[in-house]
Amino acid sequence: MPAAVLFAPGSEDPTEWVPALAAALPGTRVYAVGDSFDAEEVEVAIVAPSAAGVLRGLPSLRLVQSLWMGVDELLTAPGLPADVPIARMVDSGMTREMPEAALAHVLYLHRAHDVYARQQRAREWRQWPQPAATNRSVGVLGLGELGARTARLLAEHGFRVHGWSRTPKRIDGVATHTDLNAVLAASEILVNQLPLTAETRGLLDARRLAVLPAGACVVNLARGAHLIEADLLTMLDRGHLRHAVLDVFAEEPLPPNHPFWTHPAVTVLPHVAAWSSLESCLPVAVENIRRLRAGEPLLHLVDRERSY
Amino acid sequence: MPAAVLFAPGSEDPTEWVPALAAALPGTRVYAVGDSFDAEEVEVAIVAPSAAGVLRGLPSLRLVQSLWMGVDELLTAPGLPADVPIARMVDSGMTREMPEAALAHVLYLHRAHDVYARQQRAREWRQWPQPAATNRSVGVLGLGELGARTARLLAEHGFRVHGWSRTPKRIDGVATHTDLNAVLAASEILVNQLPLTAETRGLLDARRLAVLPAGACVVNLARGAHLIEADLLTMLDRGHLRHAVLDVFAEEPLPPNHPFWTHPAVTVLPHVAAWSSLESCLPVAVENIRRLRAGEPLLHLVDRERSY
Repeated sequence: MPAAVLFAPGSEDPTEWVPALAAALPGTRVYAVGDSFDAEEVEVAIVAPSAAGVLRGLPSLRLVQSLWMGVDELLTAPGLPADVPIARMVDSGMTREMPEAALAHVLYLHRAHDVYARQQRAREWRQWPQPAATNRSVGVLGLGELGARTARLLAEHGFRVHGWSRTPKRIDGVATHTDLNAVLAASEILVNQLPLTAETRGLLDARRLAVLPAGACVVNLARGAHLIEADLLTMLDRGHLRHAVLDVFAEEPLPPNHPFWTHPAVTVLPHVAAWSSLESCLPVAVENIRRLRAGEPLLHLVDRERSY
Repeated sequence: MPAAVLFAPGSEDPTEWVPALAAALPGTRVYAVGDSFDAEEVEVAIVAPSAAGVLRGLPSLRLVQSLWMGVDELLTAPGLPADVPIARMVDSGMTREMPEAALAHVLYLHRAHDVYARQQRAREWRQWPQPAATNRSVGVLGLGELGARTARLLAEHGFRVHGWSRTPKRIDGVATHTDLNAVLAASEILVNQLPLTAETRGLLDARRLAVLPAGACVVNLARGAHLIEADLLTMLDRGHLRHAVLDVFAEEPLPPNHPFWTHPAVTVLPHVAAWSSLESCLPVAVENIRRLRAGEPLLHLVDRERSY
């Protein structure tokens, strides 16, 4: 019986993906959830976290290829088999767009465009001193595929970049640290690009936000659960923090009655910092299937202990 | 009688500039407007446009060094002698900060942050398709010291950049044109970096704005007089244009009752895209005085015919 691929999407369109996968994997049957197929035939499942329930009862499964880079939701999904390798999606869509989003937000805050937006609402014409990028310290939390690229792009632009990761890293032009407080204390603008794990959940709480310099700004592009939202609001209202740009939230879509919507010091974005497309993801999944079948090392394998 | 320098500032602080100039020009007397000095002694005047009246009656004047890059206002100032060379200020503050401001605004519009800001006001969670920078065409009007650097920076970031100048230019990675309509028609985001001259005054009128693609955005970082403000408002209200980021205005400060302040599709900035500082400007002025005295070619001389 030939080894088959099961496609279990979230918002991805199976009518585009299934034929494209079939074309890229000649001789392989490709099924979408809802098709009729023999469970014993499925060798690889390409899944979004919301569809992880299909992973139950696939006795021949040898690889779970995530459609998402962040696997925090997938790892806690009921039905995830305990002993099958899981690969994250690290695609060019995500790795190109996330650093661009970070640069856009850092420039916005660096140039005080948030301050000028508030002044516009008050019809106030007032110029503020503007430091050069070379005199502006920016912190990046997380130096994985996304964080390292973001840190490098910001450094290329001229910012003084401090990066934090659990394990020591070397990135040209970036001061890297394993001491979180050293990075927080230096960050006039803080960009979160961490994976969501047991250690990073709730990391940005009142105690940690208080370590940021007075008037600092926060950019969260990773997961809402990294940040204690009530603590952020307190620090903004006290004036210790100047502004927050939030692309991710504890609950998404952000509930209509959430105070972030109307807070003058909060920019709300509907989880649009980076996105994966068929064009950027499909080649990564296909390459991992090729490697699986050739017995070669798989790309972007998840360490279940550290959760990424 | 030794040749003296007269410092005639606008908002620049003479108590900082005069001692710094004196220190950089040993043996040269440096006066500020209001000091008592012999008019026949003044060889060089370093002036802001608003102070150009002092240029009357300086019989030994050999150089007018502008404190501003844009000399449109200086060239029409009463008292400007007809036959003395005028040099523009082209300093590292301006040439570094202006392209950064352009990149900040282009990224803001490219990433639809204006659209998401409007959605935030309506508590609307909605994601829009996002093209890659490599599929986004940006136009730059003016390819002088600032425009060329802006065009290059945008191209390095990955945008498809079209640049317009009166005379043919070559810039790596930028499609340059002398046909204005070719650039306008290609510009999803248009950045104005032109000098203000008789030809460019009022350039961006209803007829020219109509050549931009539907849904285009305009960024004006040059002079308010380049743009017919009423025409821009009409094009925004009709929906032909999506958003305008304006750093400069026909009247500055922008009058409190101006419709731009409250227009949902207009970002008002108080002329902060780039600025000159003593640190960035003083070495340029001192170098031009050295060249003048050594009989060497002066930097950044203004052609009065073309007005820049």
